[in-house]
Amino acid sequence: MRQSNRGQVAPFIAMDVLRMAAEAEAAGRDIVHMEVGQPSTPAPLRARKRLADALESQSMGYTVALGLPELRAGIAQLYKRWYDIDLDPARVVITSGSSGAFQLAFTALFDAGARVGLGEPGYPSYRQILRALSIEPVGIPTEAQNRYQPTPEDIPGGLEGLIVASPGNPSGTMLGRPELEALISHCAARDIAFISDEIYHGLQYDARAVSALEISDDVFVINSFSKYFSMTGWRIGWMVVPESHLRTVERLAQHMFICAPHASQVAALGALESLDELEQNRAAYAANRALMLEELPKMGFTRIAPPDGAFYLYADVSELTEDSAAFAAEILETVGVAVTPGMDFDPHRGAQTIRLSYAQSPERIAEGVRRLKAFMADR
Amino acid sequence: MRQSNRGQVAPFIAMDVLRMAAEAEAAGRDIVHMEVGQPSTPAPLRARKRLADALESQSMGYTVALGLPELRAGIAQLYKRWYDIDLDPARVVITSGSSGAFQLAFTALFDAGARVGLGEPGYPSYRQILRALSIEPVGIPTEAQNRYQPTPEDIPGGLEGLIVASPGNPSGTMLGRPELEALISHCAARDIAFISDEIYHGLQYDARAVSALEISDDVFVINSFSKYFSMTGWRIGWMVVPESHLRTVERLAQHMFICAPHASQVAALGALESLDELEQNRAAYAANRALMLEELPKMGFTRIAPPDGAFYLYADVSELTEDSAAFAAEILETVGVAVTPGMDFDPHRGAQTIRLSYAQSPERIAEGVRRLKAFMADR
Repeated sequence: MRQSNRGQVAPFIAMDVLRMAAEAEAAGRDIVHMEVGQPSTPAPLRARKRLADALESQSMGYTVALGLPELRAGIAQLYKRWYDIDLDPARVVITSGSSGAFQLAFTALFDAGARVGLGEPGYPSYRQILRALSIEPVGIPTEAQNRYQPTPEDIPGGLEGLIVASPGNPSGTMLGRPELEALISHCAARDIAFISDEIYHGLQYDARAVSALEISDDVFVINSFSKYFSMTGWRIGWMVVPESHLRTVERLAQHMFICAPHASQVAALGALESLDELEQNRAAYAANRALMLEELPKMGFTRIAPPDGAFYLYADVSELTEDSAAFAAEILETVGVAVTPGMDFDPHRGAQTIRLSYAQSPERIAEGVRRLKAFMADR
Repeated sequence: MRQSNRGQVAPFIAMDVLRMAAEAEAAGRDIVHMEVGQPSTPAPLRARKRLADALESQSMGYTVALGLPELRAGIAQLYKRWYDIDLDPARVVITSGSSGAFQLAFTALFDAGARVGLGEPGYPSYRQILRALSIEPVGIPTEAQNRYQPTPEDIPGGLEGLIVASPGNPSGTMLGRPELEALISHCAARDIAFISDEIYHGLQYDARAVSALEISDDVFVINSFSKYFSMTGWRIGWMVVPESHLRTVERLAQHMFICAPHASQVAALGALESLDELEQNRAAYAANRALMLEELPKMGFTRIAPPDGAFYLYADVSELTEDSAAFAAEILETVGVAVTPGMDFDPHRGAQTIRLSYAQSPERIAEGVRRLKAFMADR
């Protein structure tokens, strides 16, 4: 049967490491998971409690396409709390994870053939979702001295959109307010739609992350309950859109998704009431991060991107290897620690980088650090 | 900010009726809902129980992109039970509702500019999802004497795909096995990808619905837990794909969705164990259907499509009105029954049709029938 060209997106190269890790575990080995992009904690207690109650009392059919009004209002309040912004809940669109938000944003903004820029290294699915929509992803190489974030000078001509993530994945680096302002005004002057991926907001350790909404209303802001709120598998996120695009996004959402999962929307209401628990999670990440920043340089990982937020460290290992996938496989084989090689994030320079996640428990991260130390000592 | 052309999809015209119904209810009126496309029953008890248990014992992070292996195996068993087919669970892809399945299928099969056929009347979102993907929907008018289903003679040249639904929405009509075979072999001979929407399977009242998989493995079959399994808001469905397309669909799913909602996958496992409860739901629909088929013709709705399955009756009201939207508004205003005008389903002839859903409880449907009788008597 026929196949499309747009459907031939790239696989996750990191899946090979995941598979090897799973096989090693199936064979009885103990593996420390520094490759995962998700918390090991479940959804917050109040989120689960709220859903458990709803399971007994609500039929949970379709919601309206834009989501439960109470949830949209709760998210608007979060913008007041986090950024001191007065956000109209009407501009908040509940989505099936940030994945659903990207599909809606790209479809509402770009026709087939459009060119959309994204920083390298970056989240691999931007590129592949764009391709699946017949939109051309334009990789923008970023530099360590710019915190692996694009600058206005880096942005090529002919773009219709730009995707920026702060804190970034895999880098964990953030844009300061002046740098974010410069990017937004550069794009506004050229009719380049600005899409701000803020999925790691809340997971920050020194300065707080700046939202694009603090600077302009004429941006698409995408966020999710996956990371800070510890609800990856629930597939529930949101998007704040300019008023001018609300009706377009609503119609697209009606047809493309009908609604985000109702049960996840109910659980998300409970997550918004769980900031105490979530701050405890963050304290655990902070401890993990401090331990790794203390120990990794001593053992030879000396070139780590500024670790502003998220739960990743991104290390340039070019002095250690020319093939980060083989290097990751060697670490896994030798000491049972899974890390992510960089090729998925940066098709050009990723052969010399790895991403280490510190989203697991402090006990497991400490164990992983001990093993990495042994690995590096034996090289 | 820029907007795409592809994003300018049509709204649901029926939303106006829904809004009027909601406003009437907010003003204190009692409305009988014959416009809804979903059961009034919640997810089956075992589905809710299974999730409630998981909330206490599992962290429910991401699943693999194709879904929980146990759920894929359970669905393969359903094909044995329903159709006596031996289906390899590896070919079952768990999706975010049938909506997610359509996005994956269309993206895997068709590039921008492709032409894909669909019967009119039909589910409006086929057309709009195709448009959002820059694929051209080609409406195929169908005839009452063909049960509002396309025949090989109806299919125009130049198509790369054909979407068929049996039982259909809004018509509730089914294709017999010879008719389905004729369509599939017509398409196979012309390299037209065949997409079979089987979301209303299980909801049948005389003959059983035939799956395209009983005829060919070289088809895309889409189904969902929304209708028969009474789980609309859970956004959980599945797709059976040819082996040749599995890797393509897996990669697309990894990037476009990551996974279907984990909690919904767990609940779906319980739904597969709930056939007793679901058959009780179906018995209620059967009673509703019998009552309406008895009473509607007597009151003047004489031209109803053969009501083989789903929970809809599709009535040609051309002898009663030339504007079904105004007619629906009049019924709502006069006797407080919400029905769906046909324009969303058939942009050409829908001004002379309405869809009546019998998915609500027998008590409410009986009340709706009494009111419709009063309405028609007073005309």
